[in-house]
Amino acid sequence: MKELLPFPGQEVRGVSPALEKYTLDLIAGNLWKRPDLSPRDRSIVTLSVLIARNQTIEMPHYFNLALDSGLKPAELSEIITHLAFYAGWSNALSAVAILKGIFARRDIGLDQLPQACPDLLPLDQAAEERRATAVQESAGPISPGLVQFTRELLFTNLWLRPGLAPRDRSLVTVSALIANGQAAQIPFHLNKAMDNGLTRAQVSELLTHIAFYAGWPNAFSAVPVVKGVFENRPKPPSEKPK
Amino acid sequence: MKELLPFPGQEVRGVSPALEKYTLDLIAGNLWKRPDLSPRDRSIVTLSVLIARNQTIEMPHYFNLALDSGLKPAELSEIITHLAFYAGWSNALSAVAILKGIFARRDIGLDQLPQACPDLLPLDQAAEERRATAVQESAGPISPGLVQFTRELLFTNLWLRPGLAPRDRSLVTVSALIANGQAAQIPFHLNKAMDNGLTRAQVSELLTHIAFYAGWPNAFSAVPVVKGVFENRPKPPSEKPK
Amino acid sequence: MKELLPFPGQEVRGVSPALEKYTLDLIAGNLWKRPDLSPRDRSIVTLSVLIARNQTIEMPHYFNLALDSGLKPAELSEIITHLAFYAGWSNALSAVAILKGIFARRDIGLDQLPQACPDLLPLDQAAEERRATAVQESAGPISPGLVQFTRELLFTNLWLRPGLAPRDRSLVTVSALIANGQAAQIPFHLNKAMDNGLTRAQVSELLTHIAFYAGWPNAFSAVPVVKGVFENRPKPPSEKPK
Repeated sequence: MKELLPFPGQEVRGVSPALEKYTLDLIAGNLWKRPDLSPRDRSIVTLSVLIARNQTIEMPHYFNLALDSGLKPAELSEIITHLAFYAGWSNALSAVAILKGIFARRDIGLDQLPQACPDLLPLDQAAEERRATAVQESAGPISPGLVQFTRELLFTNLWLRPGLAPRDRSLVTVSALIANGQAAQIPFHLNKAMDNGLTRAQVSELLTHIAFYAGWPNAFSAVPVVKGVFENRPKPPSEKPK
Repeated sequence: MKELLPFPGQEVRGVSPALEKYTLDLIAGNLWKRPDLSPRDRSIVTLSVLIARNQTIEMPHYFNLALDSGLKPAELSEIITHLAFYAGWSNALSAVAILKGIFARRDIGLDQLPQACPDLLPLDQAAEERRATAVQESAGPISPGLVQFTRELLFTNLWLRPGLAPRDRSLVTVSALIANGQAAQIPFHLNKAMDNGLTRAQVSELLTHIAFYAGWPNAFSAVPVVKGVFENRPKPPSEKPK
Repeated sequence: MKELLPFPGQEVRGVSPALEKYTLDLIAGNLWKRPDLSPRDRSIVTLSVLIARNQTIEMPHYFNLALDSGLKPAELSEIITHLAFYAGWSNALSAVAILKGIFARRDIGLDQLPQACPDLLPLDQAAEERRATAVQESAGPISPGLVQFTRELLFTNLWLRPGLAPRDRSLVTVSALIANGQAAQIPFHLNKAMDNGLTRAQVSELLTHIAFYAGWPNAFSAVPVVKGVFENRPKPPSEKPK
């Protein structure tokens, strides 16, 4: 965690000694060591926020940190591919331009990357039918093309690519939505994330982590949406009265 | 359409073979060939999204593609000028910095660009009176300066510049609003766009196209707003029961 | 105000003679000379918008303009530090990368910058208690970490740093919120800004100014929120009927 700044610490100090100190004490020395999200999870969240907001300055540091904290090159590749759809094509291509330099320096080649067309994970037919029916009702009459691509590309293809676990794919998606203030799209994906294994404690800590990387206002704007999702889900066993 | 990537395809492949394949098969091979929006329209929409989101990495490719698919240098100039007001001054200046290099390489000079102060298109006095009255009522007591500039600069000047057709100017505006998730401003401008000739089928396809360039969440967040506009407009003749 | 463009005027003219003229006539020749916001205030607002939206192209010009119109190096340092929390860490670091070059050329060193841990301004205990209670009720059960950092870092530390007056800190915050369309967070901070001395006329002019730098849609989307805040505050003495 020594290299947490995008340029040598002394240069941040030359503009803001306070920002240098906050970065070292708070982010490196505190936030990343808190429980409930592992350093690997925090790498996924941080990179998702940076890519979703097209912020390249911290990407070299965090791509390297991700590789050093357990994320595989194939997983970074899938995170970028996933965010092409959930944040926009240019966001993904800007991240590619950074990551390819890092892959080159680490001698990471095609053999460590996911195939373009791998065997897909099995589809949960019932859940997909519910999703497709709901989307067809709301969006079908307005944009049949959007609805068709959503089914064929996203939910029966992208989400089933095996290079990134569904739970991690959800973490990427929810992080991007919160980071970009897309409140209306959070409930579906937060429910999906929790169905995929994300716990309430992890969601709570996700809000804390994102506050630093996407700003306090985005974190606070997500709070009532998260609250609504929590209240409408059955209580997890550990929280039920005995 | 061979050069759809901002850098040689092989370099995208070196990070994400899947993203390369999606780009070639889906975007170049499918999306841009779909009916309802011409390649010229898709160039307008794509550039508006990129400028509105300040994403420079794909701009060189799409500025060149636009010039090759029928947009005139004067129209590109007007798109940037228009978006200074609808996306922010820096967004326009970042696009200028890219496009001036392309104009230089193509020997496009001042004689092909719109004048700073051309003869303006005629104003629809009745429509402008309705708009000005509504805005005065809602915003006049809060920010008279904003209301005054909106009238003098935008609706009796910028929108009447002859270098870009009103229908195309509307396409630029609506694309930028959807790409930035500015739902509250969509109804007025989508109605204006449809008054200016944009059809329901084109709006439907616009949502599909924008999903790729500004991400699925922005497209889906616009769906209920578009639905509301469609429902409140008189049905077009072709959809009326016989 | 001669150097208002990020590159020589002739180059903007080479893409859009209209944009050059609007910039010179409207922004330099009109907007910055309007009453109700001083050039110093306009520098704070403009830089806050640019940093909050991560738009680096105009930053060199406006950092220099800010130093020339009365903002101290220490105040620029604090604006960036403040926006790390209110816009995101990367936004602050991108601004640092620009400003350090300007500080170097002007021979501005550590002796002109705020300390990392200065003596803090006194805390308004009653106001902080009200804020903390409200946030605990709404966000405490969802994200205790977020609530704790908000209290310990933001309201009993960052906001009390002496290098930037509370009224200016509020101006930074409100500008960033409007520029990023974060409507839900505006009422608390606009009320705080007005408690800190920002007048209705200044807020009105703030909307006008931001329209140019963050685009008309962000200014208009803030209007109903500002209206709600104005209506719920006691009328200032000057507006009371006699």
